[in-house]
Amino acid sequence: MTAGPSRYVAVIGAGRCGGELAAAAAEVGRLLARAGATLICGGMGGVMEAACRGARGEGGVTIGILPDLSRAGGNPYLDYSICTGTGHARNLAVAASGDAVIAVGGEAGTLSEIGLALKCGRPVVLLASWDIRQGGELPGGVREASTPAEAVELALGLINPP
Amino acid sequence: MTAGPSRYVAVIGAGRCGGELAAAAAEVGRLLARAGATLICGGMGGVMEAACRGARGEGGVTIGILPDLSRAGGNPYLDYSICTGTGHARNLAVAASGDAVIAVGGEAGTLSEIGLALKCGRPVVLLASWDIRQGGELPGGVREASTPAEAVELALGLINPP
Amino acid sequence: MTAGPSRYVAVIGAGRCGGELAAAAAEVGRLLARAGATLICGGMGGVMEAACRGARGEGGVTIGILPDLSRAGGNPYLDYSICTGTGHARNLAVAASGDAVIAVGGEAGTLSEIGLALKCGRPVVLLASWDIRQGGELPGGVREASTPAEAVELALGLINPP
Amino acid sequence: MTAGPSRYVAVIGAGRCGGELAAAAAEVGRLLARAGATLICGGMGGVMEAACRGARGEGGVTIGILPDLSRAGGNPYLDYSICTGTGHARNLAVAASGDAVIAVGGEAGTLSEIGLALKCGRPVVLLASWDIRQGGELPGGVREASTPAEAVELALGLINPP
Repeated sequence: MTAGPSRYVAVIGAGRCGGELAAAAAEVGRLLARAGATLICGGMGGVMEAACRGARGEGGVTIGILPDLSRAGGNPYLDYSICTGTGHARNLAVAASGDAVIAVGGEAGTLSEIGLALKCGRPVVLLASWDIRQGGELPGGVREASTPAEAVELALGLINPP
Repeated sequence: MTAGPSRYVAVIGAGRCGGELAAAAAEVGRLLARAGATLICGGMGGVMEAACRGARGEGGVTIGILPDLSRAGGNPYLDYSICTGTGHARNLAVAASGDAVIAVGGEAGTLSEIGLALKCGRPVVLLASWDIRQGGELPGGVREASTPAEAVELALGLINPP
Repeated sequence: MTAGPSRYVAVIGAGRCGGELAAAAAEVGRLLARAGATLICGGMGGVMEAACRGARGEGGVTIGILPDLSRAGGNPYLDYSICTGTGHARNLAVAASGDAVIAVGGEAGTLSEIGLALKCGRPVVLLASWDIRQGGELPGGVREASTPAEAVELALGLINPP
Repeated sequence: MTAGPSRYVAVIGAGRCGGELAAAAAEVGRLLARAGATLICGGMGGVMEAACRGARGEGGVTIGILPDLSRAGGNPYLDYSICTGTGHARNLAVAASGDAVIAVGGEAGTLSEIGLALKCGRPVVLLASWDIRQGGELPGGVREASTPAEAVELALGLINPP
């Protein structure tokens, strides 16, 4: 019997995005796949789809945690999909299922996933994403990256060895 | 038969807080009660408890949406409590059950509730809370207040008439 | 400061029902209100609406835990409504928020709530509802009633004193 | 790019079980794996673990949808695990993520999953499980099997072609 995958990384971001963010997300997906990490996401379009497309192109495994009861709305680059039926509340499962979380751009749902990830003690790496401060400081557990490569390197480095 | 309450306001914030934030939360609760709004919160301590204490002192109604299966952990100023059993995922119910949301201070869970509220189209008023920006701008639907009175006035003003 | 309500009873059943079940549900609601219990339900039509209508007619308090992000779909006899946004997963909050649960008739969602209530250790009273057996026996924690009065009496009797 | 797996089957049952049920669950897992179906379960012990062990022994893929925020409690035969953090509410994701559901034995949580599966329109096959009737009849969508082979054959036959 082989062990399960040792590392999961959640990639979060908007369900619709422009070409630049999509390219960044795809590169994040590619780099995660090359590192052998399993990609977790919300399973929909935009950043999620681009990241899955990148990962699949490198032979990586992608899992989509969908908001609906049906898997029909999932993007076409998912190896496995989970039908939660709990709408935006599934954001908790996305955040918690990552040993680390990378936010690429993002809108309100992404902001909620950042908060939930921090609440669950998951490290979060921001790439062209929200600027979130309290008293002028980034919250503990959050790092900012300026390239996909830096984001993936930071995220994998922040995962505690099993 | 009388109609149900016309306005719900969710007050969100950390489960532990210092005296200054507690005083602000209690004042928010008092002002909401005087305005006849029903106070929704996560039902726990800190900001939630202070807001409920304030509201109850003015005869307001308070509802706690608890993370656990038991209501034993709820604060003592709840008129009604809901046992969700879904942990941090209940943050969605807290955010969505407010016609408007007031954040008083706050930690990671509060950040998630702000994101979820925005995702659900609920207006959010920040009082000594997170500074959240994208491209240097506050997200649409977010307002900043500098006093409890301003926070309550903004929140009630942002609720669409029924 | 007065204590919160000491007893919550969840009434569960189908969102559409015939006149006989509606009459039974309304009678359950009336009797719960007279006993001073707060009525919890899923907030929709059918058995839920009839029970709320009965309770409101006797001055009881009714709380609907809605599946959607909006309270627009709630029945008109709710004093308070919670917008969970988690669809059928909100059945857990309905079941867990009752100190006891009364099932009146019921379809698949009701069956799930019975299972969830038992999982949470809440006593369940069945009135013209599912016949659920394992090895020919009703599960522990389940009682059958033949009238609304018997259902309410059993349910209130099964609630442990606080 | 290859397509995702065409068929998911959820295997549900108690987190602790005796040797006979474990043997039946393991055989269900083996037969599902041989048929190329992806096994979905709640990720814990008992029937879930036995089914995963069977599936893994035949090279099948197993996914556990865990109740907790951590994957530490998952059984050792999971290829992939999802950390929902929503406790028993994750039963909806287990039920909905199966294109069909097989119940092996079962306690209260299993009963809730049967109800949720039916609510979501997923066919359910019962193997030494609950006897659930209304007016003396099994609910539509439910079939009873007397052997693991019959259970798997029925479940796969009930999945609509994609």
